[in-house]
Amino acid sequence: MSSPNVIVAGIRGRMGRQIAQLVLHSQQLTLGGGTVRADDDLAGSSISMTDADDRAQDVPVTATVAEFNGLPDAVIDFTCPDYTIALLDDCVPRKIAMVIGTTGFTPEQEDRIRQAAEKIAIVKAGNMSLGINLLTLLVEQAAAALGPGYDIEIHEAHHRHKKDAPSGTALMLGEAAARGRGVTLKDKAVYAREGQTGERPDGAIGFSVTRAGGIVGEHEVLLGSDEEVISLSHKALDRAVFARGAVTAAGWIAGREPGLYSMRDVLGL
Amino acid sequence: MSSPNVIVAGIRGRMGRQIAQLVLHSQQLTLGGGTVRADDDLAGSSISMTDADDRAQDVPVTATVAEFNGLPDAVIDFTCPDYTIALLDDCVPRKIAMVIGTTGFTPEQEDRIRQAAEKIAIVKAGNMSLGINLLTLLVEQAAAALGPGYDIEIHEAHHRHKKDAPSGTALMLGEAAARGRGVTLKDKAVYAREGQTGERPDGAIGFSVTRAGGIVGEHEVLLGSDEEVISLSHKALDRAVFARGAVTAAGWIAGREPGLYSMRDVLGL
Amino acid sequence: MSSPNVIVAGIRGRMGRQIAQLVLHSQQLTLGGGTVRADDDLAGSSISMTDADDRAQDVPVTATVAEFNGLPDAVIDFTCPDYTIALLDDCVPRKIAMVIGTTGFTPEQEDRIRQAAEKIAIVKAGNMSLGINLLTLLVEQAAAALGPGYDIEIHEAHHRHKKDAPSGTALMLGEAAARGRGVTLKDKAVYAREGQTGERPDGAIGFSVTRAGGIVGEHEVLLGSDEEVISLSHKALDRAVFARGAVTAAGWIAGREPGLYSMRDVLGL
Amino acid sequence: MSSPNVIVAGIRGRMGRQIAQLVLHSQQLTLGGGTVRADDDLAGSSISMTDADDRAQDVPVTATVAEFNGLPDAVIDFTCPDYTIALLDDCVPRKIAMVIGTTGFTPEQEDRIRQAAEKIAIVKAGNMSLGINLLTLLVEQAAAALGPGYDIEIHEAHHRHKKDAPSGTALMLGEAAARGRGVTLKDKAVYAREGQTGERPDGAIGFSVTRAGGIVGEHEVLLGSDEEVISLSHKALDRAVFARGAVTAAGWIAGREPGLYSMRDVLGL
Repeated sequence: MSSPNVIVAGIRGRMGRQIAQLVLHSQQLTLGGGTVRADDDLAGSSISMTDADDRAQDVPVTATVAEFNGLPDAVIDFTCPDYTIALLDDCVPRKIAMVIGTTGFTPEQEDRIRQAAEKIAIVKAGNMSLGINLLTLLVEQAAAALGPGYDIEIHEAHHRHKKDAPSGTALMLGEAAARGRGVTLKDKAVYAREGQTGERPDGAIGFSVTRAGGIVGEHEVLLGSDEEVISLSHKALDRAVFARGAVTAAGWIAGREPGLYSMRDVLGL
Repeated sequence: MSSPNVIVAGIRGRMGRQIAQLVLHSQQLTLGGGTVRADDDLAGSSISMTDADDRAQDVPVTATVAEFNGLPDAVIDFTCPDYTIALLDDCVPRKIAMVIGTTGFTPEQEDRIRQAAEKIAIVKAGNMSLGINLLTLLVEQAAAALGPGYDIEIHEAHHRHKKDAPSGTALMLGEAAARGRGVTLKDKAVYAREGQTGERPDGAIGFSVTRAGGIVGEHEVLLGSDEEVISLSHKALDRAVFARGAVTAAGWIAGREPGLYSMRDVLGL
Repeated sequence: MSSPNVIVAGIRGRMGRQIAQLVLHSQQLTLGGGTVRADDDLAGSSISMTDADDRAQDVPVTATVAEFNGLPDAVIDFTCPDYTIALLDDCVPRKIAMVIGTTGFTPEQEDRIRQAAEKIAIVKAGNMSLGINLLTLLVEQAAAALGPGYDIEIHEAHHRHKKDAPSGTALMLGEAAARGRGVTLKDKAVYAREGQTGERPDGAIGFSVTRAGGIVGEHEVLLGSDEEVISLSHKALDRAVFARGAVTAAGWIAGREPGLYSMRDVLGL
Repeated sequence: MSSPNVIVAGIRGRMGRQIAQLVLHSQQLTLGGGTVRADDDLAGSSISMTDADDRAQDVPVTATVAEFNGLPDAVIDFTCPDYTIALLDDCVPRKIAMVIGTTGFTPEQEDRIRQAAEKIAIVKAGNMSLGINLLTLLVEQAAAALGPGYDIEIHEAHHRHKKDAPSGTALMLGEAAARGRGVTLKDKAVYAREGQTGERPDGAIGFSVTRAGGIVGEHEVLLGSDEEVISLSHKALDRAVFARGAVTAAGWIAGREPGLYSMRDVLGL
């Protein structure tokens, strides 16, 4: 089989460009092109990227997936909720698989994605790194092994452009901790502390958030008793780690049966 | 001159006991006793502490400073705002100096302390450690040297029993950062982030808070640009660091002129 | 059965005193006394400790275990290798169980302990905290799940009085990482880096060591790829965490069959 | 005056490429080209880079600076010691200013650079980031303010390809700490700890080194007493931080009088 043809949604954004670069350098995938906003000067034209041999390559960009010559096998999407939902309308009828890294969907939008996954194969994950997906497993175990004398806190730090808090990944780690403890996150989560808070509620799972400069993404789950602190943490050195996970997922999903898959499926964890 | 006689307010509390222990082991100070709640079984009696030679010592405890035989030179107070204000009524007429480490006063209570300091010598500080007081100076400098491209964030972590957030020390570091930038903290402070926060406001000074187990006290001031992060932090290994600062302050304040002094005065920073 | 009677070796040392304090405050154990050096002024006499109700207690101290009136059920030993070996000679003939937290034994001394464990019950562990023993399990898993693209590094920090490097606990974590990878630690360990080291050897397990002030004990195992870093760490807030593990072990070992046990046995991990 | 023309030595290396990209995107500087090894296929030809508008640009590459048409105003060099020394022979007779970020020179090579700086303007720095240069100042102050009860330790972490340890920047921070204390680094430095080290020597300045994955560069200076730890640290999020400092230095040095300058001169710290 020839290498799967991949389209990158939002190719001129930070993540989009990085993903496209990785696909371009990959030997398993072909970069079919990317989408841009309809009002982008380059829509319908192309952008220049540098291949693995330091040579220029023209990459076609269009406003929609439907405009491409020849159907892609998969679309990788790290954009924003409304854009993702619009992409579903292009991909479902054309049987194009999707890798969705966008976060912040409303419950209705989540439903739309689940419905689409009955027709096409979709990998959806708040965080596509191997490290974070492994960490999630370890957090669940640690929370299960350490009794109620250990308080659980999750701290995350991201760049100044991030618009939601805590991050989707922090929430995912909070869910893992809650599972380990046999409780429900929404009953136990404390998302902010300010003023006269009183003592820490027993069994709380606390979150705290830092936003500064260009921090790519850092997450720490801390389990602290009176006498010791265990900390399980992850630091992305390079946005490429999420891009790489997405590219791995695109290779994995192309040609697969309809369904909603997780990165644990992709990574075989 | 004989060594100053010191009374420890709230001697059966965590901080009180530690301070009393240090005073007992000190060669510069004499431990006159401590106060306890009026309904404490031991009020009017004594508690046993171990001296530097591993020998037992009886330490008298009473419900008020006024009940002690012989006036102390100084009272060290790490209790709660109402208790501190009540202590002023005992100390001012008797010309007893005070070291106040209690935090969380209302503006009216702050005024009461300022008035008292016209009559007696008072050292008041949110944090009595040498390290924190030095850090405050470094934070002010760093904030002044690094331009608006560097975002300032303050993270603090304390034990589960702490009742306010952010800590008084975190606010003190925030004030130092604001001074370095030539801005006012209350115009720039972001105390909590939850939900759709939008991008980080330009020039914000952000705070985040962890509460877990027995963490003594950790503070980090982070200054982050797109490409680098400078972090200036302090970690108390032992509550004794605050106790030691208080004991140093008690030795310094005894016999001094009325006035409101800071730890920078005591430490000569 | 009455509560096991425990003797603390080196009761006037930092760890010894803390363990004795915990035993004194414990409702499951009785503190029979402690040993001190033969040339200690207090040998044959007693020291004063404060019980859970702030009352003084005299605790008998002698130069050897043999001198105590009435046999203890267990001896807790955090001393130094030679002292531990000498203790075996007292404990084996008297069928006294031992909890050994001392580290730094020679291979010959390790043999002596194994032989003793054929006659008496011994718990021996380089680190008795629940957190560290859990961390060891997580490290083994993480090392197994993350392929050779992830470099493993172990950093530890301790107080200025520690005499060996890396710590026994760091080595224990290194062994766990090596097991996870299916390699032998001694083939892969890099204990120090100085000067023109060249690039990092493939598959190395690196160690680094900090010694400063009163740091109780911090261990971090880092697994880093080109794009992300997973860090699994432990920080002792209070020496009491090791003391508590030792006291738990003493309660567990008293009356047990001869054998060499680990903290995993004690903790049921 | 037209914008200074800059040549990047080793343009196909990691740092070289990043610096060239920044020069290409800069509005203050012109990218004249880059040098490559004499045996590189592209020597005498060009490489493709992407400009700020996502358009391809051909950038000429040659084996030596002498081969360029038209003299550059400055050469930026982050290569290796022998290559740097060879560059001096090209730059000195042609009065081309240099920005040298290479580290690891022998004392003889350092002399060669000092001699060259009598003829041309040279900025030389082990680390060109604003953050590190500020940190150096803060470390010196902290070491001066905190007495001998505070132990100084420097920990650094870099990617697996780094060939020397500790990093030049760690040594620079160690020099700053030693200056603050009024001691000489080489008398106090402890570069590695392994085996039976004994207690920490009084006044030592300790170093420790981590090598893993793609860590860009992290430095921490810790000052720890029995009761508290102050930590002053820097983390490069992106190699671009060093590249940016170099580009700033190239703009500053072009047309300046001969002399050996530091980043403090460039940054006005």
